[in-house]
Amino acid sequence: MKLSKLFTKTIKEAPKDETSKNAQLLIRAGFVDKVMAGVYTLLPLGYRVYKKIEQIIREEINAIGGQEIYMPTLQPKERWLLTKRWENMDDLFRFTSHYSKIEYALGPTHEEIVSPLVKKYASSYKDLPVYVYHIQNKFRDEKRAKSGILRGREFMMKDLYSFHVNDKDLDDYYEKAKQAYVRIFERCGIGSSTYITFASGGSFSKYSHEFQTITKAGEDLIYICDKCKIAINKEVLNDVENKCPECGNKELKEEKAVEVGNIFKLGNKYSEPFDYYYTDEKGEKKPVIMGCYGIGLQRLMGTVVETLSDDKGMIWSESIAPFKVHLLSLKQNEQAEKLYKNLEQAEIEVLYDDREEVSAGEKFADADLIGCPIRLVVSEKTLKEDSIEVKRRDSDEVKIIKLKKLITELTL
Amino acid sequence: MKLSKLFTKTIKEAPKDETSKNAQLLIRAGFVDKVMAGVYTLLPLGYRVYKKIEQIIREEINAIGGQEIYMPTLQPKERWLLTKRWENMDDLFRFTSHYSKIEYALGPTHEEIVSPLVKKYASSYKDLPVYVYHIQNKFRDEKRAKSGILRGREFMMKDLYSFHVNDKDLDDYYEKAKQAYVRIFERCGIGSSTYITFASGGSFSKYSHEFQTITKAGEDLIYICDKCKIAINKEVLNDVENKCPECGNKELKEEKAVEVGNIFKLGNKYSEPFDYYYTDEKGEKKPVIMGCYGIGLQRLMGTVVETLSDDKGMIWSESIAPFKVHLLSLKQNEQAEKLYKNLEQAEIEVLYDDREEVSAGEKFADADLIGCPIRLVVSEKTLKEDSIEVKRRDSDEVKIIKLKKLITELTL
Repeated sequence: MKLSKLFTKTIKEAPKDETSKNAQLLIRAGFVDKVMAGVYTLLPLGYRVYKKIEQIIREEINAIGGQEIYMPTLQPKERWLLTKRWENMDDLFRFTSHYSKIEYALGPTHEEIVSPLVKKYASSYKDLPVYVYHIQNKFRDEKRAKSGILRGREFMMKDLYSFHVNDKDLDDYYEKAKQAYVRIFERCGIGSSTYITFASGGSFSKYSHEFQTITKAGEDLIYICDKCKIAINKEVLNDVENKCPECGNKELKEEKAVEVGNIFKLGNKYSEPFDYYYTDEKGEKKPVIMGCYGIGLQRLMGTVVETLSDDKGMIWSESIAPFKVHLLSLKQNEQAEKLYKNLEQAEIEVLYDDREEVSAGEKFADADLIGCPIRLVVSEKTLKEDSIEVKRRDSDEVKIIKLKKLITELTL
Repeated sequence: MKLSKLFTKTIKEAPKDETSKNAQLLIRAGFVDKVMAGVYTLLPLGYRVYKKIEQIIREEINAIGGQEIYMPTLQPKERWLLTKRWENMDDLFRFTSHYSKIEYALGPTHEEIVSPLVKKYASSYKDLPVYVYHIQNKFRDEKRAKSGILRGREFMMKDLYSFHVNDKDLDDYYEKAKQAYVRIFERCGIGSSTYITFASGGSFSKYSHEFQTITKAGEDLIYICDKCKIAINKEVLNDVENKCPECGNKELKEEKAVEVGNIFKLGNKYSEPFDYYYTDEKGEKKPVIMGCYGIGLQRLMGTVVETLSDDKGMIWSESIAPFKVHLLSLKQNEQAEKLYKNLEQAEIEVLYDDREEVSAGEKFADADLIGCPIRLVVSEKTLKEDSIEVKRRDSDEVKIIKLKKLITELTL
């Protein structure tokens, strides 16, 4: 894509009401726009990143048997009364239609939709397990929306729900989901700073597991066991007697972290209210056991920005970068244009800064701010030697490469 | 995908409260589930169709320069007051947060978000035109949600918004958008029954254009000129003096039709309330001229079902079918399994009915109901001759093809 065609522009000054690093960088670079507190638009560059994160999640959840659906935001009050969340869930948006007087909940999570749905189709042990997921916008009436896109009132979530004949079957799948999550965060570039973390469970299991990424922007405190590479959320530190529940290690390292995902054993908490039981081999009615597995996509994107960025801007991993290559022309537009076409033909995603009225300094600054993994500079100097300047965003090293070798180099 | 793994099942009887053909077939075949009036879940088969429609639209809108973004559902009251739609738009869902007391509109359309957004970036004639679009869920408090998925309270929309320096520039783009729409409906399989239709305009143009698809399920009456292959919506029949506005033909044919898309010249109706003007070459302030271009995706999907179906079920065109091939095994699971793997390896999308406890008759009925374009039957009889039975859903002809020629045949 040509930067001259992109309708957004970079902004020099971060908006005053945004104090979080993720929102400051994302807004300055034209990835998101703030509409009101906790409510953002994803702009072309940001939506490209979002889509890549979405696709990574989709691939990993498909790989563990997830079937993708799309559930409604408008949800009937009756179902929320059955789970007792209509009155008890503080941050549930609920409202009454002006003229039909129908009362709706605005989906913050989808157990109330998915349990009655799966109940319609899976009533026998032969029909189970079932793994269903969706990726879509959800809503929470956060008391104070803050931390940029880490905690919005409207946000995209992947929620996977699993339905099982017994705890053993849930436990097996829960482990598979845990490994899928490890792969997701690895592929998004924050694997090394993300820890499987023991957190509080519910009526049905002592602990749940969160995926916590170390960053100063984090609202949670976690305690890391360096031997096992796992962590404990402060909220259950007493329960594990201040030591690693896996190896007993007492030397735990305190860090601030952001919860980028969580997985939870629900037992029959959301099947029982909908009278959802299955028939086993003997024809007996048994409770359906559920698990749920969530990832907030903007939160994940914002955490990547908090984790992978410097004073100059963002540093995207290739897997989720808006473009792999940022091509800059320093008054050599003819040659740059040719190279741009060659790169596109080789199916390399490239953002081409073809702007004519912008200084070299501004172009370099924008490339650093936007943070594509590879920067290419076409200049008179290197062209004399049929070469091009190549620099990775995550390194200071500048390489000069022969033009004819460039595409091979980039597609390695 | 194996049918035994799909969590949905076909249903013999259509639900009593659904009288429309599209909802009856889609629910019976397990493409959608009704949650409440006007609110549906897209199930795995339906979501596959939805995604393909979405991708066709995305490709065609990208081809005319559209830049994709994602805008919020939660919209600030202040902006809707500026356009005077807070009180005047009957079917606008509006509500107040229980504890923050913030008043929100639930996005039924996105002029109130997109105009202030583009204003931030495009203030000079040099920055225009801008073409921005999004594909996401929207909400309308329909007095009576009916006609299945043709008219929901929650639905997916593609809305493209264009911003121009003058009417001439809008007119040129409007024609491009019109042609993109023709290609979209063509690619979805309803090109021959869809007419560009003159409809009422607004303060800024005498007519807008709708894309109307002929079907008995339609709520609109249109009058077709067979010479020009265009139509006139009843609402403007008097304005065009009961004749074709292009050739003067008075022999117009009345048909019931569904509006699957519409394109509209907005003038400065939604730029002026946001004080959105641009600076021209002479430094003078000029109004920004807008166009908008909408397609409802469930409505399009439902219209396809109304148009392309028979007593047995749905008849999808290959472009948007959930799977290209429906493979049936009549107790020859070993050979069918092998073929299934070969087809998947050849990247042919195949739904494999591997169910063991289901009769041949039920399998045939389900294949017809689900409506994939090509049905393959593996049976003892044809296997003896190293052959397979091939039947297109839209034809009665049954062909016997040598197995070794099958993949070539299917990928032609």
